[in-house]
Amino acid sequence: MTFWKKFFKNADTVDYYANFNSIKEECLFEDVLLIKHLENKGKYADIYISTGKNINLHELEKLCDSVGWVRRPLKKVKIAIDHSFITISLFYKYNNNKKLIGFARATSDTVFNATIWDVVIHPNFQGKGLGRALMDQIILQLRYADISTITLFADPQVVSFYRNIGFITDPDGIKGMFWYPR
Amino acid sequence: MTFWKKFFKNADTVDYYANFNSIKEECLFEDVLLIKHLENKGKYADIYISTGKNINLHELEKLCDSVGWVRRPLKKVKIAIDHSFITISLFYKYNNNKKLIGFARATSDTVFNATIWDVVIHPNFQGKGLGRALMDQIILQLRYADISTITLFADPQVVSFYRNIGFITDPDGIKGMFWYPR
Repeated sequence: MTFWKKFFKNADTVDYYANFNSIKEECLFEDVLLIKHLENKGKYADIYISTGKNINLHELEKLCDSVGWVRRPLKKVKIAIDHSFITISLFYKYNNNKKLIGFARATSDTVFNATIWDVVIHPNFQGKGLGRALMDQIILQLRYADISTITLFADPQVVSFYRNIGFITDPDGIKGMFWYPR
Repeated sequence: MTFWKKFFKNADTVDYYANFNSIKEECLFEDVLLIKHLENKGKYADIYISTGKNINLHELEKLCDSVGWVRRPLKKVKIAIDHSFITISLFYKYNNNKKLIGFARATSDTVFNATIWDVVIHPNFQGKGLGRALMDQIILQLRYADISTITLFADPQVVSFYRNIGFITDPDGIKGMFWYPR
């Protein structure tokens, strides 16, 4: 109960926890209302969450631009999304407009291990608990598939964010390692 | 040139480097001779490397048993292999027998990122450079697909092994993180 109430103090009286539970029960869904009337910079918007892969690539590019990521060819981004086990998108809707404000995806062998990549929340919507909602949802989906080892590689500035969600760095001395082309 | 010569001093006069180069050129293959006449415990065997996914699951289970891994349901192992982007197997052949002695696989979005899992060499064949050959081959395959971020999670006792291959721990402070079910 506490989570939604805590993070969305300005939202209206919809019971978010009940809504979240219904999401849990469905578990696979497209465009489910996550928050009604989230206040953002003096405006109110409805926030939707979706596992649909039909993502507008130009919108996704804009979202990644907004956090300063290096641009990647859209054709490749499309292939990466198609070959990701799960994608989660956050939209806000107002006046019949729909805007992508959050995204994350996970690669997986679909049964044992998964790795989460490309977690992004638009700067205008950061600090409102939406990153947490995104991560909760991707973990929920992966757990629904009975995947027990959920991994990611965190930049230094977001390690504490992931720790708060329950991620552990270097458990039992296991080290994340990278190989880059020379 | 040096690698094969260095690691397989007891092998016969086949030019392994030339062989490795032909593997490089083909890049996708099944059952390619890697080493002819590898001496192992007073016997000689031919070692083959393969990207084929038609892996005998009982043999793979035995291989994983040999290094003390927790058993996993074979049905799930099959699904994980089917949903891995690349699998690499090492066999040794003698007297028309073929035995699985090494294995590794990688999950991937097929264009940007990959994560290597389940790297295993049978204890009787460890210390002969076969782990390195396995890793070289999986990196080669991933590079062939133009994947630039190759990752893995290394147990403490194998961190130096992966370092020697060129893997880096925590580059730019990036931390590998795990989430486990509570």
